[in-house]
Amino acid sequence: MDRDIDVLVHEVGPRDGLQATNLIMSTDGKVEWIAALKDAGLRKIQVGSFVPPKLLPQLADSDVVVRAAKGIGGFAVSALVPNLIGAQKALDAGVDQLNFVMSASEAHNMSNVRKTRQESLAEFTKIVDLRNSDPSYAHTTLNGGIATAFGCTISGVVHPTCVYSIMERYMEIGADSISISDTVGYANPKQVQAIYTDAKALAGPIPIGAHFHDTRGMGLANAFAALEAGVRYLDGCLGGLGGCPFAPGASGNVVTEDMVFMIEAIGLRTGIDLDKLLHAREVMKRLLLKEPTHGALAKAGVPKGFVPATRLQSATHPGKKT
Amino acid sequence: MDRDIDVLVHEVGPRDGLQATNLIMSTDGKVEWIAALKDAGLRKIQVGSFVPPKLLPQLADSDVVVRAAKGIGGFAVSALVPNLIGAQKALDAGVDQLNFVMSASEAHNMSNVRKTRQESLAEFTKIVDLRNSDPSYAHTTLNGGIATAFGCTISGVVHPTCVYSIMERYMEIGADSISISDTVGYANPKQVQAIYTDAKALAGPIPIGAHFHDTRGMGLANAFAALEAGVRYLDGCLGGLGGCPFAPGASGNVVTEDMVFMIEAIGLRTGIDLDKLLHAREVMKRLLLKEPTHGALAKAGVPKGFVPATRLQSATHPGKKT
Repeated sequence: MDRDIDVLVHEVGPRDGLQATNLIMSTDGKVEWIAALKDAGLRKIQVGSFVPPKLLPQLADSDVVVRAAKGIGGFAVSALVPNLIGAQKALDAGVDQLNFVMSASEAHNMSNVRKTRQESLAEFTKIVDLRNSDPSYAHTTLNGGIATAFGCTISGVVHPTCVYSIMERYMEIGADSISISDTVGYANPKQVQAIYTDAKALAGPIPIGAHFHDTRGMGLANAFAALEAGVRYLDGCLGGLGGCPFAPGASGNVVTEDMVFMIEAIGLRTGIDLDKLLHAREVMKRLLLKEPTHGALAKAGVPKGFVPATRLQSATHPGKKT
Repeated sequence: MDRDIDVLVHEVGPRDGLQATNLIMSTDGKVEWIAALKDAGLRKIQVGSFVPPKLLPQLADSDVVVRAAKGIGGFAVSALVPNLIGAQKALDAGVDQLNFVMSASEAHNMSNVRKTRQESLAEFTKIVDLRNSDPSYAHTTLNGGIATAFGCTISGVVHPTCVYSIMERYMEIGADSISISDTVGYANPKQVQAIYTDAKALAGPIPIGAHFHDTRGMGLANAFAALEAGVRYLDGCLGGLGGCPFAPGASGNVVTEDMVFMIEAIGLRTGIDLDKLLHAREVMKRLLLKEPTHGALAKAGVPKGFVPATRLQSATHPGKKT
């Protein structure tokens, strides 16, 4: 974590958002969008996914986008990978963070990556070995993601012990950080408090990230509960991209600009400029053509007299290491 | 509070929702909507506002609606009043709870009810005297509302001491309960935690209610923070009616059905049946014609395997007095 911010917001729109659309955005468009996000102060952006292009043609240019994003500079470039083949490509493209994904729900993991959870963990072991095998990969950190951690559209309830045992395995294998995700928008803030509190105790110095969807309107309530539990790494999608195909018209990921506004309002610094973030949203909307977007701040604006924590404290607050 | 619920949800759509629309709903329509809300298990419904019909023609039939709602029975009938004349009419119509309104912001109070805050408090004193003057009014409780408690579109920041000093005056004068409202959607959950924690300490046995708008996406986050601070009386509008004229397209009041889902999900009982609540939403939507509605639950449905607290605990939980 940089010393001048309290919360790192990880924008995942160019990956999680685009994979949910029918639109195939041009590489130039993606790079323009990513540059606008960087200008707004985002410190980490997930720019693509290394999966077979047949499965996600929207993200088939991920290696080119990673290289272009690295060329922009000034932020960490992350990408999602489900397996060793994808990891090799992501490492070769030069990602700063590799976001490995597996599900807490066995049924969801089989459906999503066609592996048992044991097989996914074995794959992650190989990825750690690969990263450690070559000094040119040393700058790339490995994040272990746990999807469907709060419930699953196939299995329903997911017991927290499934989450904690995957966490323990991730740490044994050598994950640099761990993300716990409400992939399908099932989480409630009490559950969020309980799981992240336990997860942070279990993880010790390993950073724990959170990823929420707004499918049932609780995205920001869950983000607040996670912040209260001490989580300082949060994913979001500008304009709430990333709707679930099983909930037509429903919101997708938690809305980055609304979440940044909330974080700044409760006195924590993101380092993000809200005006520039809303500008990046306009850039994105133009590139998305008619894809629907969500979000309240873009309609309502900030309250009269509002001063974000980042601006309020930048003169007086020397920053602290978190 | 009834023994079989933990949180009382006060539906304010037929007042706060309708006053924000251009539509003048028929009296029969309002009564049909209110009956559907009662069938869903709502225990308190705000059915109208006793203000000059010239100002709010949408609510000109409030006395007739109050009498019809009392005829349905099985729930507390509330109505908003800004002054003594309105209070007389509301008492004569037989409301169970009279919701007096004034603003923490002097500028907003002048703009909204054309009185200084001192004049509003003097008016509330007369209303208490009126209620106490006639045994036929004895069943009517008097709620003191504090609008713009978290900020004001005219004045910007509102200091919490303005809220607490109005609370103290309300208690001296004889309010039976107090509501603290984020009238313009400025609140953030840290502010909510702080103000309701202090307000509950100040109020002692006097019940404290909360009223949130979702203008900047934080309606449910604020409701959660209020619940965490021990608040057990929450306002909502079915379908998130009640948009602010200064934020076109923005959401209005916190969405009742999404809030009830959240409350039930975190293990607190509302006594409300979510399926029947979504049915009441359909009734409302038909009556509203083309007026826009909001809300996530109506699109996404409940999670697989979800059991609401009201159903989970009804067999095993004998209920507790809160």
